[in-house]
Amino acid sequence: MISNDAAERAARITAVIFDVDGVLTDGGIMLDSSGGEIKRFNVQDGTGMKYLIRAGYRLAIVSGRDSHATIARARELDIDDVYQGYKDKMDAYEELKRLHGLSDVEIAFVGDDLPDIPIMRASGLAVAVKNARPEVKGIAHYVTELEGGAGAVREFSEWLLRAAGKWDAIMERYRPRKGSG
Amino acid sequence: MISNDAAERAARITAVIFDVDGVLTDGGIMLDSSGGEIKRFNVQDGTGMKYLIRAGYRLAIVSGRDSHATIARARELDIDDVYQGYKDKMDAYEELKRLHGLSDVEIAFVGDDLPDIPIMRASGLAVAVKNARPEVKGIAHYVTELEGGAGAVREFSEWLLRAAGKWDAIMERYRPRKGSG
Amino acid sequence: MISNDAAERAARITAVIFDVDGVLTDGGIMLDSSGGEIKRFNVQDGTGMKYLIRAGYRLAIVSGRDSHATIARARELDIDDVYQGYKDKMDAYEELKRLHGLSDVEIAFVGDDLPDIPIMRASGLAVAVKNARPEVKGIAHYVTELEGGAGAVREFSEWLLRAAGKWDAIMERYRPRKGSG
Amino acid sequence: MISNDAAERAARITAVIFDVDGVLTDGGIMLDSSGGEIKRFNVQDGTGMKYLIRAGYRLAIVSGRDSHATIARARELDIDDVYQGYKDKMDAYEELKRLHGLSDVEIAFVGDDLPDIPIMRASGLAVAVKNARPEVKGIAHYVTELEGGAGAVREFSEWLLRAAGKWDAIMERYRPRKGSG
Repeated sequence: MISNDAAERAARITAVIFDVDGVLTDGGIMLDSSGGEIKRFNVQDGTGMKYLIRAGYRLAIVSGRDSHATIARARELDIDDVYQGYKDKMDAYEELKRLHGLSDVEIAFVGDDLPDIPIMRASGLAVAVKNARPEVKGIAHYVTELEGGAGAVREFSEWLLRAAGKWDAIMERYRPRKGSG
Repeated sequence: MISNDAAERAARITAVIFDVDGVLTDGGIMLDSSGGEIKRFNVQDGTGMKYLIRAGYRLAIVSGRDSHATIARARELDIDDVYQGYKDKMDAYEELKRLHGLSDVEIAFVGDDLPDIPIMRASGLAVAVKNARPEVKGIAHYVTELEGGAGAVREFSEWLLRAAGKWDAIMERYRPRKGSG
Repeated sequence: MISNDAAERAARITAVIFDVDGVLTDGGIMLDSSGGEIKRFNVQDGTGMKYLIRAGYRLAIVSGRDSHATIARARELDIDDVYQGYKDKMDAYEELKRLHGLSDVEIAFVGDDLPDIPIMRASGLAVAVKNARPEVKGIAHYVTELEGGAGAVREFSEWLLRAAGKWDAIMERYRPRKGSG
Repeated sequence: MISNDAAERAARITAVIFDVDGVLTDGGIMLDSSGGEIKRFNVQDGTGMKYLIRAGYRLAIVSGRDSHATIARARELDIDDVYQGYKDKMDAYEELKRLHGLSDVEIAFVGDDLPDIPIMRASGLAVAVKNARPEVKGIAHYVTELEGGAGAVREFSEWLLRAAGKWDAIMERYRPRKGSG
């Protein structure tokens, strides 16, 4: 579900914040016998996020939980702005805005549950994954067709790049080379 | 499936006991090469359980298995009453009642398999997850539409909070702030 | 799918052999960064296997792979006969028959892939899980409606107990106690 | 979806290259609390790959990521040619051709995402899994009906063996033995 003004909002975005559990994952909290946490991310999501970075977007991760797995994933994707363990996610949001001089209209946020609602109300483009709570979908400008951990982030990444007219540049390198048929 | 008197029963509940495998998880028993166990919980279930605690419910976990992962999850959710490795779960149920001075009508139990039947018969509100055995569903006052590990506990948590008239207070903090539109 | 004579064959069974990957699991081979293997078993399957043991059946596990996780699971379920790493599973089958003085008609085997075919042809009751290869299903007396790792073993366990007239004794302990309503 | 000339192309294949994430797995990137990676492979895929080797095909693995789990899986399957961590997968492709004196028409490649496109354009038989990006499916000669990690590789392996007239020899050992009925 895409609201009428989502594309217009997309054109102003320069930064994307992702919630972790239920957005970059399917919401599974895997705990091992020593209490360590295993998270399951998605490879096609990761490629989508790299395309966003290549196109000049600033990416950030904000999570209520504190997980080493998330740090490891952020490092793989060259994302420096990782805000974990925030009881009130708005604190992370405000800090991120201050640190990088961002205004609300420049920020897209992708979330799934009630604690994400304040950031979604504040940010310029609010995205809910398919598996988001109904109250979260209700205030989103864009609701993904795919579930978190199963391509929701890739779907949104490509949509944003297309809405901003940046997808063709990404695809350019995958066009047939001259003379190679 | 919700029986006619489930809402009436819900009004008397002050404590909720959760089975683990098949209820807080999808029933997967993941064992690693050193015999350690990994369990996959669900982030939205966890938020639902936190809402129950915030609304004043006492939460407990009762399992036939013994798992460090379950202890780690209980700790995250601030649940102190964890009864694991009980061959007969009724022993844990009776101990819990005695310890906190609870009566049957105050207790809801969420289960999935035959060993859960005695507690379900005894407790005030018997809940079966969608993936419960038919015999378990047959004696339940409430059968969830979602599967264990995939939102069944969140679904029941919100239902109980609504039935008890406590959901609005939870949602209050996610309402738009004055002046923020 | 249950062949006409499956129930008749079931009456003679005294031992059940389970393949591991694709039968006790969904076929997932999870490898960690040190090459250790994680297997995902199913809690309701385990309860079904315990019921078989309680009813007097001898259970065994035969696998082409060699996995510590399988040994850990067998130990939990009190299964002593674990034959792993057999290139030709028929060798394990013959050894098991010799060791316990079993004849073919007494043995049920649950499998999913082509290497299971020789034992399935030899044993008294050949069971294929839903996710078995077509050639395996083609020679099975019983094909489960559920997939491996998602209840196939529980389904077959209950079916066998019912076919052998032993299910009522299992359910007996879950009947309402006198005077408890 | 199988293009008209796929069978003709299959007849010339002597080597098969598999992408890892999304092809040999369902695309899940599982990270543990120390940043180690867990990958979930599929047992029936593995049997299919062993059949390809038995039939004389050279197998290779090419991945943009670097994972110990992939090395462990390759070792189990007796695959020596593992090219990991290649930013441009074409470099691995060219190295593999040079090392074993292979020409493009002899090589099949199974992939799922945009970085696989250059190899798919170059190789003699381009295979996309069901969960591949639309652009990848668009240039494939064969699109699997099953998803990566859920049998896509087994499906393609059997198809290739059948197209090359080598499947009957594989099945030979699973035929009933003389006198065993």
